[in-house]
Amino acid sequence: MRQRRPKVPDVPLLMTPGPTQVRENVRIIRAFEMTNPDQDLKFFKFYRKTCLKLAAFLNTEAQVLILSGEGMVALDAACASLTESGDRVLILDNGIFGEGFADMVKVYGAEPVVFKGDRTRGISAENLREFLEKDSDFKFATIVHCDTPSGVLNDLKEICPLLKSYGILTVVDAVSSMVGEPILTDDWNIDICIGASQKGFSAPPGLAFLSISPDAWTVIKGRKTPIPSFYCNLLLWKNYYEDLWFPYTPPISDIYAFKTALDNVLKEDDASKRHRKIAKAVRKAVIRSGLSLYLKSDYCSTVTAINVPEGLDGEEIVQKMKAEHSILIGGNFGYLKGKVIRLGHMGENARLEYVSETLKALQLTLESEGVSLRADMESVFLEEMAKKKR
Amino acid sequence: MRQRRPKVPDVPLLMTPGPTQVRENVRIIRAFEMTNPDQDLKFFKFYRKTCLKLAAFLNTEAQVLILSGEGMVALDAACASLTESGDRVLILDNGIFGEGFADMVKVYGAEPVVFKGDRTRGISAENLREFLEKDSDFKFATIVHCDTPSGVLNDLKEICPLLKSYGILTVVDAVSSMVGEPILTDDWNIDICIGASQKGFSAPPGLAFLSISPDAWTVIKGRKTPIPSFYCNLLLWKNYYEDLWFPYTPPISDIYAFKTALDNVLKEDDASKRHRKIAKAVRKAVIRSGLSLYLKSDYCSTVTAINVPEGLDGEEIVQKMKAEHSILIGGNFGYLKGKVIRLGHMGENARLEYVSETLKALQLTLESEGVSLRADMESVFLEEMAKKKR
Repeated sequence: MRQRRPKVPDVPLLMTPGPTQVRENVRIIRAFEMTNPDQDLKFFKFYRKTCLKLAAFLNTEAQVLILSGEGMVALDAACASLTESGDRVLILDNGIFGEGFADMVKVYGAEPVVFKGDRTRGISAENLREFLEKDSDFKFATIVHCDTPSGVLNDLKEICPLLKSYGILTVVDAVSSMVGEPILTDDWNIDICIGASQKGFSAPPGLAFLSISPDAWTVIKGRKTPIPSFYCNLLLWKNYYEDLWFPYTPPISDIYAFKTALDNVLKEDDASKRHRKIAKAVRKAVIRSGLSLYLKSDYCSTVTAINVPEGLDGEEIVQKMKAEHSILIGGNFGYLKGKVIRLGHMGENARLEYVSETLKALQLTLESEGVSLRADMESVFLEEMAKKKR
Repeated sequence: MRQRRPKVPDVPLLMTPGPTQVRENVRIIRAFEMTNPDQDLKFFKFYRKTCLKLAAFLNTEAQVLILSGEGMVALDAACASLTESGDRVLILDNGIFGEGFADMVKVYGAEPVVFKGDRTRGISAENLREFLEKDSDFKFATIVHCDTPSGVLNDLKEICPLLKSYGILTVVDAVSSMVGEPILTDDWNIDICIGASQKGFSAPPGLAFLSISPDAWTVIKGRKTPIPSFYCNLLLWKNYYEDLWFPYTPPISDIYAFKTALDNVLKEDDASKRHRKIAKAVRKAVIRSGLSLYLKSDYCSTVTAINVPEGLDGEEIVQKMKAEHSILIGGNFGYLKGKVIRLGHMGENARLEYVSETLKALQLTLESEGVSLRADMESVFLEEMAKKKR
């Protein structure tokens, strides 16, 4: 039968904090013919090897699993598999996603206790220590590494070992930070570390993954009540390789593509260095132009949140960038909607050409809205990038 | 930077009952650049249009949703969203997947009551009626349209209206039958009809979808207790289009690919006719050769389950087909493991060339194992296919 080539969609330059641009070699492998992943023994090996490679990247000897679904499915799987009714869970909250974890654990009958941090900087380990001295009876704590709406980066290296010293497991949402920031899962005592395909790895959305420490497995296996979920039940995965049995048909081409994306990252000397350099130069450009950053400190290298100048609406700036420059930057939501816009320089977005094009377009857009800027953001950015020492 | 083309994987001809072969135009669209589906308003329209197109294909005016995850995620979402603790749920069981629903609803605190049918034929509506006359106090019933391990087809046209007449909602797993068999969702009173991308639609695995009738929505919205799941909470989707908000980032390229796969199916006059003709010819070939079918009646057109001749092991036949002919057919599991092998002629697998090649290879494989067959399966199949009238 005649097969018509599908129409190529008209796609803006993605400069959002995920999904990110996908490199050609990752996209191409998704077009290949596939085997049946449930029945082809080779695929079990491939799946396991990819998980082990990801574990090595995350600096952990813990088991890593790749799930079929968006990042949220791994957050849900962690909460469903750990929580039993009545458990007290500590919610570290200095951002919209941090706060959101309270609703996720409540679903499974937990009593969330919120530790609130300043939303314009990282969680203070000192304040957390004081808090824990009074109350530390928690089964686990949830922490967002980079809370995307503001881009605040929490210091896992301080926070997770502190929690561990009180016997509290940690569930870390590292979806938005991974690749752009180093993650030393085992050294930092992270029990469950969660990521997704469409952020720093620059693969298409559709995969979530998580590492599960021996301590976390002990708790999951030692539950008194069964895990109240089917799709999000991590126990079903425990022996997939020994039993040659997946709980459901894995999305084979997505996993092949992810492996290619992971290899792209691994071929670089240190992808987080590239992110750090870009992020610093972006912040310099923003400040020198007279715009201001939303955060006071603790910037994640994957996203920059910029305060919208008085009298303007952030969502309109986003729409204008798209309409006039075909560049999609991040708007915002919750209490930041309209007030803070975001440049997502994570994964493949974090390239000099893309970022400079975006800053140039942002400058033109703001100026057309009557904002007078004190410096040319693109030039400042390029000057900073040209500097050898960082 | 230099981008190496990824290595083309060595792929056998897929003749399994899902995942199926994926047509080139579906694979190609997955290689395109993508937009950000959370922020690009066009994608909300595209998503909705694709859901409406799928609804039309399923002959329903009910809302259809496409979820990120394997088929199981939709089964789980239906069970999690409908069930409240203590609900009695009727499990229609005449196969391995039918039986499996009992475990899925138990997760959410339901009391499953199993109605057992003969596993070698469809559920008897007459027996079910007798059963319901004595006990019909069920919130919903679960039914598998085609129970893949045996390929038995249940008569939804009889069963679902019968259950509806007792006020019982129906959750139908039509993952393996869709495209290969007609489904008249509204006419047959199906409340939740569930499918997946990797079976008859011949798209890659990674998407699940379901239709949700107004009656089902009423029950979901009228729950006394919150839905005990986050990722599988259908309520989060209720107003995605009005609110321009998805509960998570949708897998954009998978949904584009699925839309192309759906268009492939819609361009055919009636894909189920093609499946029926192929399936009848396969059964004829099997019987004339002296082999026997596992089922006594009610064959689904998407898969044929063949009894393994005495003294042979089904799993070995599958491995030999793969090693010597590079064709992957279906083995089996549960009580059918080793005893019943399966030809999956669903979606793109259901083409004359592929099926005849598979029958030829199966004949050679069985003969090499010492089985003497009474007829040449490929010839019988081709003769049947050549007949004008069916």
